[in-house]
Order: sequence, then C-alpha cells, then structure tokens
Amino acid sequence: MERDFIRSLRGRLPQHERILVGPGDDAAVLRAGGDVVVTTDLLMDGVDFILRDIDPRRAGRKALAVNLSDLAAMAARPLAAFVSLALPIDEGSAIAEALYDGMLPLAEEFGCAIAGGDTNSWRGPLVISVTAVGETTSRGPLLRSGAKAGDAIVVTGGFGFSIQGRHFDFTPRVREALLLHERYTLHAGIDASDGLSLDLWRLCEESGCGAILEASAIPMHDGWQALFPADDRESSLRHALGDGEDFELILGVPPADAERLLAEQPCAATPLTRIGQFVAEPGLWLRTFEGHVERLTPQGYEHRL
Amino acid sequence: MERDFIRSLRGRLPQHERILVGPGDDAAVLRAGGDVVVTTDLLMDGVDFILRDIDPRRAGRKALAVNLSDLAAMAARPLAAFVSLALPIDEGSAIAEALYDGMLPLAEEFGCAIAGGDTNSWRGPLVISVTAVGETTSRGPLLRSGAKAGDAIVVTGGFGFSIQGRHFDFTPRVREALLLHERYTLHAGIDASDGLSLDLWRLCEESGCGAILEASAIPMHDGWQALFPADDRESSLRHALGDGEDFELILGVPPADAERLLAEQPCAATPLTRIGQFVAEPGLWLRTFEGHVERLTPQGYEHRL
Repeated sequence: MERDFIRSLRGRLPQHERILVGPGDDAAVLRAGGDVVVTTDLLMDGVDFILRDIDPRRAGRKALAVNLSDLAAMAARPLAAFVSLALPIDEGSAIAEALYDGMLPLAEEFGCAIAGGDTNSWRGPLVISVTAVGETTSRGPLLRSGAKAGDAIVVTGGFGFSIQGRHFDFTPRVREALLLHERYTLHAGIDASDGLSLDLWRLCEESGCGAILEASAIPMHDGWQALFPADDRESSLRHALGDGEDFELILGVPPADAERLLAEQPCAATPLTRIGQFVAEPGLWLRTFEGHVERLTPQGYEHRL
Repeated sequence: MERDFIRSLRGRLPQHERILVGPGDDAAVLRAGGDVVVTTDLLMDGVDFILRDIDPRRAGRKALAVNLSDLAAMAARPLAAFVSLALPIDEGSAIAEALYDGMLPLAEEFGCAIAGGDTNSWRGPLVISVTAVGETTSRGPLLRSGAKAGDAIVVTGGFGFSIQGRHFDFTPRVREALLLHERYTLHAGIDASDGLSLDLWRLCEESGCGAILEASAIPMHDGWQALFPADDRESSLRHALGDGEDFELILGVPPADAERLLAEQPCAATPLTRIGQFVAEPGLWLRTFEGHVERLTPQGYEHRL
C-alpha cells in the first residue's frame, strides 16, 4: 500500500535543513534563499526507456537527472524533488523501490531532498513524473534569452552517441553551472536535451539572434567509432549535432569572459569548449571542415502531439 | 507538435507578477513571499476518471483542483501550477486543449499561474501530473500534526456522494483556509480526499491523539436520497464517513476559537460545522445516533501498490 511504502521511504530520506515539512503532510514546505526555480519532466515506459530491457534504477536515476539538468541550465541550486509514479499494478512495489534506489544517491550527491510525491498503480505502463525545485543564487537565474551577437558559444563535455548508455548515466551539470555563473559573466544558457543544433536554435530564438558553429571545434563523445568509419568526420558531426540527450550546457559568454574561462578550465574533469559564436542575424550556420560557411537546419527530437 | 502547442498556450496565459519566468525556458522562476509549499498529484485515465465517459475539461479541472485542495489544507496561497501530460497519440492535441480549457478558469479564479510543464504523447492512456506551488502566509503552514486533546473537529461543507459529480466539480477550499487561518487559531488541518474517517485518522496519527465523532453532527451532502431510503440515516452516515473525494477541510480548532468561528460563520456560502472533538487516547470513536460511543474503523480509499 502507498502508506507502507511512504513510511519506509520516509525512513530512507536524509534530513535537509531547508525542507521544513517533507513527505507525510498534504504538501511539502521549503525555505528558499533566492527566487524559486521549478521544472518538471515526465518519462514514459516505451518512449523514454524500455522497462523490460533495463535496470529500473536507471530509469529512476534518469527521471531525476533530466530535471537536475534543467535546474543547471538555469544556474539554480537544487533544493527538492517531487516524484509522482503510475506503477504497473503487478510489480509496483518492486519497481518503486528500484526507482528510488536509482534516485536517492543522485539526489544526495546534489543536495536535493525528495520532499514529496504521489504513488499510484494502474494497469498501464510505468510513468515517472518528477518536479524539481531549486533556488537562484545571488547572480539570479541564467535564461535562454540573454545571448548577444559576439558572445562565444561555450559547451561543457562532448556530444553524440548518448544512446550507447550515457542518456541514462550522465551527470547533470549542476556544479559546472553554479561555478561558471559565479565566476564569469554568462549571458544565456540551455541544456542540450533534444539535440545540440535544435537546443542552440531555441536559445537563439529566445535571444533574438543567430549562431555560427565551427565543425572542427565541436567536441564529440567517444562512441562514434562504433557507428562510423574513422575517417568519416562528417557523419559523426551530423550525428552529434542532432542526436540529443547529451545533457551538456550550451552557454552564451561575452568574449573576454570566454577567453578567461577557456584558459582557466575551472571545471576539473569537465572540459569547456568554444564551438562558435552568436551573430546578430537570426539563423544557424556551420563552418564546415573545409572552411565553407553553410546554412544549418536545426535537428533533434521534437515532442509531437 | 509540443512547440506549437506551447506557443499557443503561452498566448493564453495571463501575466502574473510573481512569475518572473514562465513557460519557454528550462524552468520557471517564482518569487515567493513566505516559505514555499509544494504538492503534486497524478491522475490516470481508468483510475481517477474514465476519459471516454466524460468531458476532458472536467479531468483537467480536477487535476488542478485536487492540488489546490492540498494547498488549502496547508493554508498556503497558490502561486503556480506545472502540468505534465502523457497524451494518447491519436487525439493528443484536442485532449490537451480541452484539459487546459478546464484548468485555466480555475487557475485564474485562485490567482494560480500555469508556469510550466512537459507535454508528451504515447500509445498509452492519458496521464495528468500536476504540481502546485504556493506560499505560506505570515501565520506559517497549517500542518496535520498540531491537533490537541480538547480541540474541536471543524469541517467545511458536507460529505458523501461526491461520485454523483462533485468529485469533478468541487471548489477547493483555498479561500476558506486562508480566511480561517488568518482570523482564528487553527491547530491542524487536512483535506478529505480519501474519506472523512480515514483522513481524520491520518491527522490523528500525525498529531499523536484520537478523535470522537458525533453521528448526528456530520453534515451530509444532498445526494443520499438517491442511494438510501429517507429514514436510513445509518447507511447514509457510513457512506459519508468513507466515501472520499469530498475535498472539504477537516480542522483542529481550540475550543474558544471554535465557538467564535461557529457563531460567526465567516465563510459566506460554505457552512462550518463542529463534528466532534480530539481526545488524548489514540483511536477513533463514533457517538451513534442512539448516543452510544463505539469504536470506528477508519474507512476510505487506500492507494495500493
């Protein structure tokens, strides 16, 4: 029963000084220092993962991680997550346990309490709906809308080939976002969830500008070797531009700060790379490996209704 | 596509001075005056409603209303709601429109922005996950855990027979909660979502006390006439004690405040009724129509895993 599950869950949740009321009342009560940042993502068996093919802990982890990635894209500090589940009726208890086994270590790693939720079962497939709540720092939120012509496009990590497993096991760039937002001037940010070129384009649209990408500068994740011949840089690049679920940050950084940030590389194991520049004219362009500049059509995953 | 739907939705959403960033960025940014209160409920086709039998606007309205009812139970002022949808793939757009048609007027009535969400489609049945965010007033949150022996049990409205339609069309008791919390001392509160006796028992458990209910005092909703003979008070009462989805408030009020509150009846069209008293000994009792005091087993809807 939900009641027993919640009781056992309450015992597993660490205390969190900012959570005044956690699971067990009609709602949770949080004390936020700055403004409150809220994001929500819903994952479905058969769409975002295939439950019978994976360890359900990975689905639980991913459901929280994609929300933390959205908080990172706002440069917000995570406070709490709320987990609503529609569990398959026959094995709901075991699945719920496993989902939390996947979520709890990640939540703890990022100082994010699991502060509530709604646990249900039904005859349908597993649905995981997570809402994450964070707070802005004294620098305020990092929006999609602030990029300016001349800003460098700076990204964390690498792109492409997340399908080989990284789309489950990626580390949301929360620490990187907070550190960069504190030490440098950042004009705009988004996380690459649906595809590098598509998410960059979304940022351009909100900022009212365009962007030119440098083919030879885009950092690609290992993994392309399994899909493409070693000398086929072009296919690997096209894949990396539209593959999605990279959950890396795409940032708009004014030139002087970009120069400093790239030289200092302050994010330990996470490389920072300049992959192009924002321009005044709306549109996306690519400087190819051969040095030509050509129009780029944003590609990636569009949610359909 | 989600993109077009969100664009059209953004055009329909009224401005809200406390929502600094609404739909369209990676997350929403809210400015809360007090502490932040968060609640979430997930509704599934086939469990919480039967989509083919109802107007989907009613399902949308209900998904928001149950969350507002939870904020009411905390005496929190609504700020924003976040709506995640898993839509049946074939008619997702039309259903999404209708859900919002049901939600938006209710959101506006209670000053609650729709500040974000996640819209998806799949081959499964409709799932609606709503997270509502509110703020505490200067009186702080109203918890389940504060009831004391001797407190009156005061309820809003009436109980039972919500299945005749009121479980879709009820008015969340937000205004009542805020007004009562401001003018009187309230020790504890919960909303009756799963059954009067069951939710009262949950409040008792959190408060470490018991309660005795007066059979003749429990206000019943019209509707019992259709189910039971006019002289069968007993069956109507048993139904009202465990029916659920009343979404009325159950409050623990110290005696002097209760007396004043009952005399003043400050909630306009919503009657306030004393239905019993909290007692020191853990347990639930009922003073029957005949005046006997007997043990009462909490009844209502338990979510099963």
